[in-house]
Amino acid sequence: MNGARAVLNTLVHGGIDVCFTNPGTSEMHLVAGMVSTPEIRGILCLFEGVATGAADGYGRMAGRPASTLLHLGPGLGNGLANLHNARRAGTPLINLVGDHATYHKPFDAPLDSDIESMAGTVSAWVRRTERSADAGQDAADAIRASRTPVGYLPGGVATLVLPSDVCWSDGGAAVPVPAAQAPLFEEVAVERIAKILRENEGCLLLVGGGNMRRAGLAAASRIAAATGADVLAEKSPARHERGAGLARFERLPYPRDLAVRRLAGARHLVLAGTREPVSFFAYPGKPSTLIPAGCEVHDLGAAPGALEYLADLVAPGTAPLVTDADRPGLPSGELTAEKAAAVIGALLPEGAVVVDEAMTSDQWLPGATAGAPVHDWLNITGGSIGMGMPVATGAAVACPDRPVLNLEADGSAMYTLQSLWTQSREGLEVTTVVFNNASYAILDSELRRVGAFEGEDVRRSRSFIDIPGLDFVAMANGMGVSATRARTAEEFTRQLRAAVAEPGPHLIDAVVPPVTGGS
Amino acid sequence: MNGARAVLNTLVHGGIDVCFTNPGTSEMHLVAGMVSTPEIRGILCLFEGVATGAADGYGRMAGRPASTLLHLGPGLGNGLANLHNARRAGTPLINLVGDHATYHKPFDAPLDSDIESMAGTVSAWVRRTERSADAGQDAADAIRASRTPVGYLPGGVATLVLPSDVCWSDGGAAVPVPAAQAPLFEEVAVERIAKILRENEGCLLLVGGGNMRRAGLAAASRIAAATGADVLAEKSPARHERGAGLARFERLPYPRDLAVRRLAGARHLVLAGTREPVSFFAYPGKPSTLIPAGCEVHDLGAAPGALEYLADLVAPGTAPLVTDADRPGLPSGELTAEKAAAVIGALLPEGAVVVDEAMTSDQWLPGATAGAPVHDWLNITGGSIGMGMPVATGAAVACPDRPVLNLEADGSAMYTLQSLWTQSREGLEVTTVVFNNASYAILDSELRRVGAFEGEDVRRSRSFIDIPGLDFVAMANGMGVSATRARTAEEFTRQLRAAVAEPGPHLIDAVVPPVTGGS
Repeated sequence: MNGARAVLNTLVHGGIDVCFTNPGTSEMHLVAGMVSTPEIRGILCLFEGVATGAADGYGRMAGRPASTLLHLGPGLGNGLANLHNARRAGTPLINLVGDHATYHKPFDAPLDSDIESMAGTVSAWVRRTERSADAGQDAADAIRASRTPVGYLPGGVATLVLPSDVCWSDGGAAVPVPAAQAPLFEEVAVERIAKILRENEGCLLLVGGGNMRRAGLAAASRIAAATGADVLAEKSPARHERGAGLARFERLPYPRDLAVRRLAGARHLVLAGTREPVSFFAYPGKPSTLIPAGCEVHDLGAAPGALEYLADLVAPGTAPLVTDADRPGLPSGELTAEKAAAVIGALLPEGAVVVDEAMTSDQWLPGATAGAPVHDWLNITGGSIGMGMPVATGAAVACPDRPVLNLEADGSAMYTLQSLWTQSREGLEVTTVVFNNASYAILDSELRRVGAFEGEDVRRSRSFIDIPGLDFVAMANGMGVSATRARTAEEFTRQLRAAVAEPGPHLIDAVVPPVTGGS
Repeated sequence: MNGARAVLNTLVHGGIDVCFTNPGTSEMHLVAGMVSTPEIRGILCLFEGVATGAADGYGRMAGRPASTLLHLGPGLGNGLANLHNARRAGTPLINLVGDHATYHKPFDAPLDSDIESMAGTVSAWVRRTERSADAGQDAADAIRASRTPVGYLPGGVATLVLPSDVCWSDGGAAVPVPAAQAPLFEEVAVERIAKILRENEGCLLLVGGGNMRRAGLAAASRIAAATGADVLAEKSPARHERGAGLARFERLPYPRDLAVRRLAGARHLVLAGTREPVSFFAYPGKPSTLIPAGCEVHDLGAAPGALEYLADLVAPGTAPLVTDADRPGLPSGELTAEKAAAVIGALLPEGAVVVDEAMTSDQWLPGATAGAPVHDWLNITGGSIGMGMPVATGAAVACPDRPVLNLEADGSAMYTLQSLWTQSREGLEVTTVVFNNASYAILDSELRRVGAFEGEDVRRSRSFIDIPGLDFVAMANGMGVSATRARTAEEFTRQLRAAVAEPGPHLIDAVVPPVTGGS
């Protein structure tokens, strides 16, 4: 078989069943292989940032890698920003990047560029396949690399560069892919941390990663109840299971000063599946670390079961404290981000997957949805905007039986709006709510924090970062997605109910005033 | 002054008067400086690929660099594809990439990444400013680097990474920027080539780069008339001046086999401002070079005046052969790409800047517009799609008194559609024609050329690369751009006339059948 089929058949052996793609000429043999390999669902995206973000969303929800198929360096370039988020999420993900034929490279044809250097900035693993005979093994190695933990993260981005002649030449063979091995924790290390929790005041448990699911949260709650330790969740978990019946924890605040204040009393910080917290940005005259001076850091690691084992050691007879079922009442009157959050909390369907890129408009959402039926909440992990719509697209492919709710800021929505076309073409169950405040409102908060502005500059800079005139109803309709506009809480309620009830993708252009002083 | 102002004031000294930007928190001091520096026009873009493509279009038309302002690695990542095109165009361009504060870098905050490796893939010059005191000189060096020829190209992409503390700290100073020096040619080298042209049969002159303007084309025409040399233009000139009264040459065909056939008889190939021609892609069993075996290659170089000097040597008394004024008649009936080309040829306004990313729909355009009033034609230089709308945006900023006509393929348009919002906000005189054939039609040609398909795969692959359901009227309206749909030649004629006559940006969604067997 040719190299393309060797790669694709190896992906099938490894359980990879979807490929988000925007291919070009150099990937045509991979396309030909894909359309005749029924085990792999090819999904066309109109921009590579949609493909890579969708693979991130798919990987977060399916727990196994999706693949992408990208067109040389520029195609990978367009996908980098969402690969950056995937890297920070620890999502297992496999990029297949087509390239010129091996013998064509020395000619430096117009589309040629240094793919490896580009890929290295987001990938845990990069390889170029030089011969068809290696294609299957290289694909198997890519799968293994994507599932190999990177520090506290469960997996990573693996990028395989496939020259076109490697794909079209015979001599390839599919190879078997061993099952993934979950990392193990050391009992003695957990027992050391148990001792610290038992014997000290001022312990703070920071949970994240895989512990943001039901079992980890329950364990954290038991530890808190039995030892008196404070518990916080990491700021932006890649996937957070939450709702009625689950343990609930405050998340580390985004604004640096609030985060510092929140961590101020800690003398022992136990990291459970996450990293040492740092300020998202630097601010003049303020340290980058958020950890108080003299606080000792203890790393429980990210291996599955470590936190539960810790709970069994320190809280053997203790039950977790869980959130009661509770939904906000339906608000009325002119729509605001706060009222929209209440409506979302009131209507959130059971089993929903929420993709949150609402930025400044998101501050009321965690509270309003805490007692809703159990759902997953996916966050922006690497700070690179434009993840929401693609991640929602991929999550809907991974979970066809679950409703996906994508909460989007207007500025972020404009990065990868082409996602809507793929949602329409594939008939995905995604409801997108755009919080349309006609502004890059987060920069309005930040410009005060960084102290860059005085007097007249403030007015000019604010007007510079306004983004008025975006009609998301028209744009969604232009890509085949049903859309409505809500200016009141009543309209938003009616529209959200209808969007969730009707099959296929929908968008609601929620007109809200900007939130000031928000996250 | 702080580092941000030192950079901006140095840009002003260097004649840089525009900055296409999508900033974030780490760039706020640069934004504050920009909004209070009247010599620099800040232009907000809703996606970085728009900013970098606009800077490419601006640089091609203004002949001096524009700057961009981008947000860390992910912001640069989103801009890479159009920087790749700018690199291949040799456009002078300066990226200012904000980064975390120097002391924040070791903390590996979520948005942190390896900016230099990413920038290196598209830049002729990359530097990180470490101290405010260096900011002015680094900016001056960036300007100089952007104007330094890179081989046959007149300039390049210079990327300056600016940590936020370098921007907000005092101690910076603006520095003077020396005027750019045009490269010189060696008379003796030109004389050697003159001898070859005089003494040999089978000479082919391949013109490109700066010779694709009136003076270079006239010189090439005189050389052809006096020596009998064949003349071809490079495949994708960054900027091509053409129309009635200018010398006109066939362009090297895109399809490899056609290009090989066209060059078959050449025994001496003289390169005048361009590189050795190579196949755009590799195809199974076919060589990458287009140059016939035994053909000698002679490089005239890209220094201004070399081709004119050559013409003065070999054709002292010869006048150039120029194109007569001639426009096609207006067609009627159902719209096709061919009829749309005729309408464009019939109506093209004098002094227009045409940005051509029409892909398969472009094959009739060169012929239909050859005798139109003098205009510039900007092409896709690096093969990375999504350049058309941004380049048109930047060209309109550079040339506010000239109408810009952007000829777009539907698939390419969807890459950087956000350009329309900037065109609306800035009131730019851009008319966009989307050739909407509901397909990645170029891949339909390529899949036959690469031989990837047989039987059932052809049908499946064709249906996979269809992109139906895109309503560009709705999407343009959603960004504040007036738009209409044309299904007949008469509608297209009426709409194009109106779009060019009315102020501000317009879009025409030109519904056409796919072209088969095209370029």
